[in-house]
Amino acid sequence: MIKDLISNLRKKDVKTISRLISNIENENKDYLDLLSGIHSYTGKAYRLGITGPPGSGKSSITNQLIEKFTKNKLSVAIIAIDPSSPFNGGSILGDRIRFSNISKNSDIFFRSMSTRGSQGGLSKSATLVADIFDASGYDVIIFETVGVGQVEIDVIEAADTVMVTLVPESGDDIQMMKSGLMEIADLYIINKSDRDGADRLYNSLNKILDLNMGHGWNPTITKTSAINGSGISELYDKIMNHKEFIERNNIKSDKMDERYLKTVKFFITEALNKDFWHSNKKLNERLQKELKLIYQKRLSPYKISKELLSQ
Amino acid sequence: MIKDLISNLRKKDVKTISRLISNIENENKDYLDLLSGIHSYTGKAYRLGITGPPGSGKSSITNQLIEKFTKNKLSVAIIAIDPSSPFNGGSILGDRIRFSNISKNSDIFFRSMSTRGSQGGLSKSATLVADIFDASGYDVIIFETVGVGQVEIDVIEAADTVMVTLVPESGDDIQMMKSGLMEIADLYIINKSDRDGADRLYNSLNKILDLNMGHGWNPTITKTSAINGSGISELYDKIMNHKEFIERNNIKSDKMDERYLKTVKFFITEALNKDFWHSNKKLNERLQKELKLIYQKRLSPYKISKELLSQ
Repeated sequence: MIKDLISNLRKKDVKTISRLISNIENENKDYLDLLSGIHSYTGKAYRLGITGPPGSGKSSITNQLIEKFTKNKLSVAIIAIDPSSPFNGGSILGDRIRFSNISKNSDIFFRSMSTRGSQGGLSKSATLVADIFDASGYDVIIFETVGVGQVEIDVIEAADTVMVTLVPESGDDIQMMKSGLMEIADLYIINKSDRDGADRLYNSLNKILDLNMGHGWNPTITKTSAINGSGISELYDKIMNHKEFIERNNIKSDKMDERYLKTVKFFITEALNKDFWHSNKKLNERLQKELKLIYQKRLSPYKISKELLSQ
Repeated sequence: MIKDLISNLRKKDVKTISRLISNIENENKDYLDLLSGIHSYTGKAYRLGITGPPGSGKSSITNQLIEKFTKNKLSVAIIAIDPSSPFNGGSILGDRIRFSNISKNSDIFFRSMSTRGSQGGLSKSATLVADIFDASGYDVIIFETVGVGQVEIDVIEAADTVMVTLVPESGDDIQMMKSGLMEIADLYIINKSDRDGADRLYNSLNKILDLNMGHGWNPTITKTSAINGSGISELYDKIMNHKEFIERNNIKSDKMDERYLKTVKFFITEALNKDFWHSNKKLNERLQKELKLIYQKRLSPYKISKELLSQ
């Protein structure tokens, strides 16, 4: 059964891929055995992350890059980390709408994932979904996120190459520097660069990067106007440069080790917690009993945790 | 020693408060006993969260509200969740600069915290720091975050009242709906409401809220222009309405229970992991051995986690 699934996966069967992803999202019991089965086929895809503030053109740039990749006979899977809808509990179709110009074609696969749910959960799931695409032979995996949050940064940081999109208005205030995105970028993109302020942003960003030049990769800045495709070829070349750079300097393999360790530790934490709460049904009863007391009369969270751990 | 600290804390001594917060941030060993000691003094402060996209005026609104609170003889502590600086590893002083108009006065305490660090870590630390302010007798605690991320949402959700700031431009596209902030708001603020599009945003937001009216609190919308103070009195009244509402309907006590449970579970997870990796030094050696193999030849992360757990 699992063997058949994996065999279909290796043929890039769209239905099988979708099914496996759903298994991960729903934390279906079998999915862990399945993931074990595909591990030896992973580690080949090139993982590209794109993030930046809302409205900075991440999707347009992604769309343009997809065209470039496919022209170069590279298949692309896109994982969009999609904060969930306010009121219906589901995922808004925004990204899918914007991606509707992409033909239904197994060489381009788009999947959005919601940021709701447990903290560690999403960055783990995104990594596992990427592993599925990786094992099924996709050449390039693009993670697209709206930046700022720690989970989004975790997802993006796991990519081989990280791109941060900015717009000329980003330079207007101190917020740009505070976005938390700046330290993780390999490639900066100033999109909508036909607008006022693009040169000013370019120069100030350049100055900051100059100050920090040193060992390793020096982040680059590309001006684009994704809506009409300008700057995309230049960006594509820079992506390929970075890809080569990290492969040549073992940076890619370090990133793979990090991902491996993080996933192992995630599974262990999950299992330890599950074992703990299932080991003794009285633990939960004890905790509920404490909750019944007036807040100020309860044992402190630290003391009750110690008491529970000692049982 | 701890007793003296707590006694000084209860006198709202600024130096003691700062020292205790540093202990939490540095995860000083003694801090857990200390926190146990203050638990019975917590649970009295009113916790207010404000979030929204960069540039939507969170700090200006916060500043204006601080004035209101202090005029009404309420002391205020502000915890700003501050993504760390790109290149120096530290915290940018942006928020502090903007807050420089606030006098050095123990009835107003400003503290910024960085979002870097472990995922669960920050929302736990922010809650613990709030507990310190709570125990030292601050009437109001304001959490200010740049929204979107899961960690920021976790911090804000733990507040008694959640405010989300928007600007007229927020209505321009689908991104507003995708911000992940919409479902957690008790009070919406349309700031910079003298700009074009404020009415349009008001109306479309109103329509969405109407659709979802039902049991419990119906989120309100306030138009403000924080820079000149307009709308702030109205906002203040709405905050007070919500405060009363959650106190009358036991929503506040439910939130306190949630915070309590989350903190207990955090401490337990931390202890379980620590025990596990310290229980047997060979575990780490085993994992390191696996890392030395070629990526594809390694046991899958799930399999190795199972092997380590069985030891």
